[in-house]
Amino acid sequence: MSFKEKGILVVLSGPSGVGKGTVCRALRKRGTSLRYSISATTRRPREGEINGVHYFFKTREEFREMVRQEAFLEWAEYVGNCYGTPIDYVRQTLDKGEDVILEIEVQGALQVKKRFPEGLFIFLAPPSLQELKKRITERGTETAPLIENRMTVAKSEIELMKHYDYVVENDEVELACDRIEAIVLAEHCKVERLIEKYRKFSGVEEK
Amino acid sequence: MSFKEKGILVVLSGPSGVGKGTVCRALRKRGTSLRYSISATTRRPREGEINGVHYFFKTREEFREMVRQEAFLEWAEYVGNCYGTPIDYVRQTLDKGEDVILEIEVQGALQVKKRFPEGLFIFLAPPSLQELKKRITERGTETAPLIENRMTVAKSEIELMKHYDYVVENDEVELACDRIEAIVLAEHCKVERLIEKYRKFSGVEEK
Repeated sequence: MSFKEKGILVVLSGPSGVGKGTVCRALRKRGTSLRYSISATTRRPREGEINGVHYFFKTREEFREMVRQEAFLEWAEYVGNCYGTPIDYVRQTLDKGEDVILEIEVQGALQVKKRFPEGLFIFLAPPSLQELKKRITERGTETAPLIENRMTVAKSEIELMKHYDYVVENDEVELACDRIEAIVLAEHCKVERLIEKYRKFSGVEEK
Repeated sequence: MSFKEKGILVVLSGPSGVGKGTVCRALRKRGTSLRYSISATTRRPREGEINGVHYFFKTREEFREMVRQEAFLEWAEYVGNCYGTPIDYVRQTLDKGEDVILEIEVQGALQVKKRFPEGLFIFLAPPSLQELKKRITERGTETAPLIENRMTVAKSEIELMKHYDYVVENDEVELACDRIEAIVLAEHCKVERLIEKYRKFSGVEEK
């Protein structure tokens, strides 16, 4: 059978503090076949960070040139550094038939959706807003007014859920991973993805 | 949270001989939370068959009356006996928030789709037409011309795949079960199913 299925771009997003990073690390530990998108950044490598593994490290000039060439699926600036998702790596991996997962903020995900609407958009949601507040507070990295601000943003982001395909509640990390794996597996079984394959095999064998 | 999620009607269908019954039995053994739809039939109970467990046994007259009252999601006649899926049992179970699985022929599934388009339609497909032929032949219940006839029907049924949501290849029973479970779990995570719940909780907690 010459039918070659393309990989799926899985975009995992959700409010800050919901646990996107934790869920991604847990998925990675499971040894799923998901490939992880590698971001480009202008920030300096931290100790132990390897170019092409943790990030693609770029100068400001190189980064700006990539933006000009529309080489990013999305990009943004945080506290003086730029971060972006190079589109080439994603496309090459999908073309090989492998799925790519991209862990990203809500605004970035909406940018990706514009450039890549055929992606699978998963919104990671907190079990409740109280729980989200608790998680952000426990991190201890933010002051009370900043926490309140994050909560307001989180509420408005829930309204953005409608642009996504799936909502995964992050009540327990392992359950969230089960749901994400199920969603990706289900996506591979969608009729639109497979009907050509079956048409081919029923055609080929008709003679 | 007063949000009450409805169950999903899972319609598992596919060409005769593909292994629908085997897959359903394997799912049942796993002890999934899926409830099994119980058919009504005019055929006589076989030894050990219990009314309301294996089938709802009906007289011809009762069955005809149910057809008149549109009490079936679908019904059909096979070799002189009528079989149908009572809609009441399905609705009651879904209203309780439980998922129902219905194992059914392709023509019946298309009838169900008309009455119940919000169902989840899964087409169980053979890994290849050769394999399907092998399975039908090995059952040993059918003559060569009948087998050829079934193969023609199977090919035309593959074209009907487009009316379904998902295709699950029955290459190995346990893998097929994994895929079906994943599809049902993913369906429960669809944004359309959950967004109201999240809107409620973000609204309630705003004050």
